[in-house]
Amino acid sequence: MVFESVQVVGAGRVGSALAARLGERGVTLDADEPELVLLCVPDRAIAAAARSVAPGPWLAHVSGATPLAALDPHTRRFGVHPLQTFTKSRGPEQLDGAWAAVTGGSDEAVTAGRELAVLLGLRPFELDDSARVLYHAGAAVASNYLVTLRRAAGRLLADAGAPPEALDPLMRGTIDNGFELTGPIARGDVATVEAHEQAIAAAEPDLLEVYRVLADATRALA
Amino acid sequence: MVFESVQVVGAGRVGSALAARLGERGVTLDADEPELVLLCVPDRAIAAAARSVAPGPWLAHVSGATPLAALDPHTRRFGVHPLQTFTKSRGPEQLDGAWAAVTGGSDEAVTAGRELAVLLGLRPFELDDSARVLYHAGAAVASNYLVTLRRAAGRLLADAGAPPEALDPLMRGTIDNGFELTGPIARGDVATVEAHEQAIAAAEPDLLEVYRVLADATRALA
Repeated sequence: MVFESVQVVGAGRVGSALAARLGERGVTLDADEPELVLLCVPDRAIAAAARSVAPGPWLAHVSGATPLAALDPHTRRFGVHPLQTFTKSRGPEQLDGAWAAVTGGSDEAVTAGRELAVLLGLRPFELDDSARVLYHAGAAVASNYLVTLRRAAGRLLADAGAPPEALDPLMRGTIDNGFELTGPIARGDVATVEAHEQAIAAAEPDLLEVYRVLADATRALA
Repeated sequence: MVFESVQVVGAGRVGSALAARLGERGVTLDADEPELVLLCVPDRAIAAAARSVAPGPWLAHVSGATPLAALDPHTRRFGVHPLQTFTKSRGPEQLDGAWAAVTGGSDEAVTAGRELAVLLGLRPFELDDSARVLYHAGAAVASNYLVTLRRAAGRLLADAGAPPEALDPLMRGTIDNGFELTGPIARGDVATVEAHEQAIAAAEPDLLEVYRVLADATRALA
């Protein structure tokens, strides 16, 4: 099935982008009896929003960690989580190239979720309902902690009198190169790692634990 | 001054890219008496390489953390560190858009370093010799630990049955959005953070400390 009418509930960062993309695809967004109601509301509001939807249409949420049970009492239900970070200042092009985790309680529901993902321009993969929290933890590590790394590293550069934004092409380059590990830990250069620790201890002692824990993890994951 | 002849010493990842770019710019790479000798050798080999160069030409290194003193006994000397990660499988286009830290002991040396950086297609900024280690620590945090984040997060996704490469558009999107913090920590969603910790403790206990230390740092740097 391909949904021809979808009611998007919620106009935050995700809901706005999804509604704009569905509109681009010719989907009717204001049908009296939509084929799908797509809940783009905060995680904690999903269960109440689901209960307020009269039985009949498909019901879906776009949350990363929320189980399908939050959509009770509906049974024609699925989850489609776009694995992307969204900002209000950009539009549906934010979806391009991103993947989507699809969870459904039946083959029909998984198929419906996959087709919605493709309609949105996302690359779907199936995710078991019981694995959603672990998956979401991984997404948070990759995305939220990337922000943390940039802020920590930017602080060190600013302390050194260097422009923090000079880090951005470096970080893009690291992704472009397929996350190949270079630098002192990769070459076993213990002296440079120790010099880093001394410099951080003097300039930003609060960041020393971050540096050390990630150094250990870098060795363990190499 | 703009260098018309440069001898590049070392043909590793950095030396290869720099020599290729200088060649594109019409710089003579095999002059008998080059105006500049550019040492693209491992950090620990810089001092010996410098001593082996007969006095006369400018001498420079491309190391991030190495002080200018490693170029003794030469006095017409500077450092130009391209703030980028390089792979042998790509060419001089890797330099495009990247910044470069320029260190020199005199105005003339800083000018020479800046002009070499521009010739290479890099955006120069001046870095004090005494700040190089701190600067380099920041670069390592941004680049090397980005690899670590991706490997840690990829492991969580794989455990959840999801494709780790689905993280890559998410990480690019995080940079594209100017490192805006989203996710459970940004919204003070303590329950989701605790659920993440429980899921990681069960699936990848070795990654729990990384998750927690970065959660604390995320709050501290927000």
